[in-house]
Amino acid sequence: MNAERIVVLSGGVGAARLLRGFHRRSDNLTAIVNVGDDMVLHGLHISADIDTIIYTLSDAVSAERGWGLDGETWNAMEMLGQLGGENWFNLGDKDLATHMFRTQRLSEGASLTDATRELVDAWGLDLAVLPVTNDALRTMVTIDEPDGPTEVSFQHYFVALQHGVPVSGIRFAGADTASLSPEVRQAVVNADRIIIAPSNPLVSIDPLLAVPGMRDLLVERRDQVVAVSPIVGGTALKGPAARLMTERGLECSAVGVARHYVDLCGTLVIDTVDASLAPEVEALGIQCVVTDTIMAEPGVLDALCTTLLG
Amino acid sequence: MNAERIVVLSGGVGAARLLRGFHRRSDNLTAIVNVGDDMVLHGLHISADIDTIIYTLSDAVSAERGWGLDGETWNAMEMLGQLGGENWFNLGDKDLATHMFRTQRLSEGASLTDATRELVDAWGLDLAVLPVTNDALRTMVTIDEPDGPTEVSFQHYFVALQHGVPVSGIRFAGADTASLSPEVRQAVVNADRIIIAPSNPLVSIDPLLAVPGMRDLLVERRDQVVAVSPIVGGTALKGPAARLMTERGLECSAVGVARHYVDLCGTLVIDTVDASLAPEVEALGIQCVVTDTIMAEPGVLDALCTTLLG
Repeated sequence: MNAERIVVLSGGVGAARLLRGFHRRSDNLTAIVNVGDDMVLHGLHISADIDTIIYTLSDAVSAERGWGLDGETWNAMEMLGQLGGENWFNLGDKDLATHMFRTQRLSEGASLTDATRELVDAWGLDLAVLPVTNDALRTMVTIDEPDGPTEVSFQHYFVALQHGVPVSGIRFAGADTASLSPEVRQAVVNADRIIIAPSNPLVSIDPLLAVPGMRDLLVERRDQVVAVSPIVGGTALKGPAARLMTERGLECSAVGVARHYVDLCGTLVIDTVDASLAPEVEALGIQCVVTDTIMAEPGVLDALCTTLLG
Repeated sequence: MNAERIVVLSGGVGAARLLRGFHRRSDNLTAIVNVGDDMVLHGLHISADIDTIIYTLSDAVSAERGWGLDGETWNAMEMLGQLGGENWFNLGDKDLATHMFRTQRLSEGASLTDATRELVDAWGLDLAVLPVTNDALRTMVTIDEPDGPTEVSFQHYFVALQHGVPVSGIRFAGADTASLSPEVRQAVVNADRIIIAPSNPLVSIDPLLAVPGMRDLLVERRDQVVAVSPIVGGTALKGPAARLMTERGLECSAVGVARHYVDLCGTLVIDTVDASLAPEVEALGIQCVVTDTIMAEPGVLDALCTTLLG
């Protein structure tokens, strides 16, 4: 086991896969997780990225869906539909328990960090999963409606609209007044290695950077920061990253990712198919590592973790 | 079908049974329901008495348990237990949908009256189910703990402690500042007949009477008010009514019930087994009707409804 203090800046599914590799080989692993996708629905506090990480590391995630729990039942949602309730966001019966637990603990005065630690402990996981902030931070997406631009929550864009509409703006509501949790600050300051997961730069990692202090901490530690490009061969393996980068005026390539992280990232890992882009990345003053990064392929996750812990 | 405007002051299980009888034969039925047993748990607004009434009238209640839905699954609760969450209050998966629906509607600005009407409509029921107030009103019970008297919520007393401890006080928190809903006021003023269900006088009916204005409205309409005694042969058919009446210094008999309601109730229906008490009831200035009242016995519910509508 590796004793280095590893910190992974994390969104949901992509980060969870990478964390699964580290979890097997690191004694001192911390995920700092996006909360911009959190929402309160039916009175329940849902932390989508945190839950995806916990479920994935517990081998309890539905492999088929990539989110939620395996062997799930949907009796509450089915009844909610019959009652005419809002049922665009699927919540399995077992999954509901996570949101019920979290909401009850928050109502008792626990922080989101506390409630998350309790969930991680209940699942018997050996890492720290830290929401970047205990304050409300919500990713809001501006889309064009017939009546003009409208701002919707990230989950509305991502799930209800299936990220199928053009985005003209992204905003992190509450970020200005949010505080990094003490645990997050300490983890970043003390990390031997800080890895930016191959998560969506604009809606998974940027919310972390939007919390006052986070960007400066990373800039100071730039030599220890290694990002993995979520863009491979000019596209994203999943989700709206490619589309959003283009819509927001970024080049949709590993070079575009490099430019986006240039001030806070000393090393960028890009996929073998993008090897020809390495000189462009290096020209930005970022060390470029070329390797296989498609974690779904056999052996790649382990090799990638070895490279990142290198 | 009877076209009279029937209003039933209601707690949970006992009232629901009576309402089921009226629902079959009344075109104009209103239940005014206790909300003192409501609570917010896991972030969800639970209205125990309202739900018992809706489920019972929909023939969806679990006959075995008397509460919750028939054919229920318990996957959320089981997982909540595994997570170390509070699981003393059982919530079935389908039942959760009711609380999710209500909580979401309240968060959108709907009143409890609105949310309840929507649930009643979704179940296709033909009556008005009116929470006595849209404001927070919570029945609090004082019990004796080793460290001295402690106040707990009604559901804590009723479910967690299984109403097995002595009660030294009952208080309706929030009642002083609660308002009768306009729908409740109108229903009482316009009712042809107002029936006090055989619910617990101290913790199901008293919370209704504690809302400013309610008692005065009933006193004005005393001749139209008919109560059904929940005490039969000196005991309650279910729940802690008998024990609570004794602990609170009331005689645990149909006469004790009559005394409790004397200022607002013109007629009291008592069970055949208590026929000898009729003169004592009448001596209080309350008309006394003696009939079979144990609704679980065949034919009794229909006959009782006929008597009450008579």
